[in-house]
Amino acid sequence: MSDTVTITVAEAINLSMTILRRTGLSEAQCDAVSDVVVRTQIDDCHSHGLYRLLGCVHSIAVGRINKTAEPKLSDMAPGIVRVDADHGFSSLAYRAGIDAVVAKARVQGLAALAINNCYHFSALWPEVEPLADQGLAAIALTPSHSWVAPAGGTQPVFGTNPFAFAWPRPGQHPFVFDFATSATARGEIELHRRAGKPIADGLALDDKGSPTTDPTEALKGAMLTFGGHKGSALSTMVELLAGPLIGDMLSIESKADDAQIGASPLHGELILVFDPESFLAGALGENLARAELLFDAITGQGARLPSQRRYEARERNQRGGLTIPAALFGELLELAGLAPASGTFRQTA
Amino acid sequence: MSDTVTITVAEAINLSMTILRRTGLSEAQCDAVSDVVVRTQIDDCHSHGLYRLLGCVHSIAVGRINKTAEPKLSDMAPGIVRVDADHGFSSLAYRAGIDAVVAKARVQGLAALAINNCYHFSALWPEVEPLADQGLAAIALTPSHSWVAPAGGTQPVFGTNPFAFAWPRPGQHPFVFDFATSATARGEIELHRRAGKPIADGLALDDKGSPTTDPTEALKGAMLTFGGHKGSALSTMVELLAGPLIGDMLSIESKADDAQIGASPLHGELILVFDPESFLAGALGENLARAELLFDAITGQGARLPSQRRYEARERNQRGGLTIPAALFGELLELAGLAPASGTFRQTA
Repeated sequence: MSDTVTITVAEAINLSMTILRRTGLSEAQCDAVSDVVVRTQIDDCHSHGLYRLLGCVHSIAVGRINKTAEPKLSDMAPGIVRVDADHGFSSLAYRAGIDAVVAKARVQGLAALAINNCYHFSALWPEVEPLADQGLAAIALTPSHSWVAPAGGTQPVFGTNPFAFAWPRPGQHPFVFDFATSATARGEIELHRRAGKPIADGLALDDKGSPTTDPTEALKGAMLTFGGHKGSALSTMVELLAGPLIGDMLSIESKADDAQIGASPLHGELILVFDPESFLAGALGENLARAELLFDAITGQGARLPSQRRYEARERNQRGGLTIPAALFGELLELAGLAPASGTFRQTA
Repeated sequence: MSDTVTITVAEAINLSMTILRRTGLSEAQCDAVSDVVVRTQIDDCHSHGLYRLLGCVHSIAVGRINKTAEPKLSDMAPGIVRVDADHGFSSLAYRAGIDAVVAKARVQGLAALAINNCYHFSALWPEVEPLADQGLAAIALTPSHSWVAPAGGTQPVFGTNPFAFAWPRPGQHPFVFDFATSATARGEIELHRRAGKPIADGLALDDKGSPTTDPTEALKGAMLTFGGHKGSALSTMVELLAGPLIGDMLSIESKADDAQIGASPLHGELILVFDPESFLAGALGENLARAELLFDAITGQGARLPSQRRYEARERNQRGGLTIPAALFGELLELAGLAPASGTFRQTA
């Protein structure tokens, strides 16, 4: 028996929708969440792919998610759109606000989408990449739960606080990066724990504040930021801009609010959208070409662009299907109410 | 004979003004540049303090700086102010545009100041800190000269590409950070070269692409980014946002334009200004208080905030004076046309 299973994209969407519908989540949320889960899986972001459905279902099961959340949009200023996610998942709130912030950015030159009161569970690149596909540049930030110690400290204060950026490249995939300001993603530590493998040095402290490579100890202690005091500074900025600036919780507040239930972080998210055409007046084409000089200088010496591996995975997996661990597939089938060994899944997909 | 010299702030300003005036730089530029040089020196940013006057004078002497530059302001969009620095130093262009971008941010919620065609030589924190003093949050970015290799590469592509951020703290100094996305500041490597000291591991490659701790080899080869591929990604973003987005040069273009003359980088700078009041409507006070919870959680465990050392230096040096190496003081006196040993400086200061 193989320890992996390969399913098609359509099967993955069907599986995700089936799992989420069984929880009573509204159809609009099922659709928005499944879209992100499957897109991340297609790009081989395993820690944010189908695996995340386990966390989603748990967050719903413990009663933290508003299953019938209806995001509410407000116009805060000529450059600011706010969406109150109504304690649902962030993906639906993003859908509710994205057209409004794009319209504002095209008029104002730049604009901000502030999402409040949302449960986040996804990567940020699926939120900025579509903006670059529309010719815009974008930054996205969000705190999470306080799992990460500041440089020079030992106690968790920051979330994994991802920072994502996208830049349009006409005729090809955008330049996109999305990294945790923690030294690694928490999902990666969880995957190591599940696999019984140690994590690398320099990623985490145990609950006594000593360095550890044991994923279980790391999850009880504190993760470290990437890049020492610089990563720590950047993580502080993510807290401030996607927390207090938009009237939402810090990672320490979100963690306290969770009260050990272990649900997805409840918090805010900030997306900044830049319209190159407004900045450049008539000089858009020549400056997009100038950006290509930069990419050529990077790839021309054999270095990779941050999104390159994802795009390669996307092409491969859209053709060849999505390969996930058999154990995970079994858990997902169970959540979907389908017996793992019966073959029912293939028939219903 | 002591190997350091201590002068007052007034003496430092006088010395800087005397040096710059002798080059024929316009009074407005002398004033804007001296203000930044002395403020950075007061904060013990030695690599960006009085030492930088040597580079300024060199850049002027080789004919690269427009000594009578008159920055020109244009309104690009409701959220965008552009200042053409007219090939003068960035500091005067900043002065020309800053009120306009603040006014826009207060109406739009956020706004961008794009400075083009400027010669930069300073740290970025002196540009964002005054914005936080006015109750605003701000980000500043600028490319420089291509001295830094991308993660996975060996050839210089990026500048040292600083990233600065400021957040207002009513009643106390703002939270401010300003870091190079290179593993160290180029000025630090230059100071090590002057002092005949090796640099740390992991900061640079020689011109064959091999790791080096020799500052002279490092200056001929390529610096590395901080934080591996994440720092490299962030540096790419700085290039794109403060280069092509605002119609200005990449670090590789700026370096080529310099044609080995060794002047300050000619390039663009992007400053993003956020008005917390627009984002928060009536909830400003409680959210500024919420930000303090974050700072307390960091400092409460004995970790430092990034700007803490600078503020301590500021208080100490404003009282006790500015201490610089005697050799540097000698060079500055010479540039000022004052004999090093004559005591003339003290009399004229």
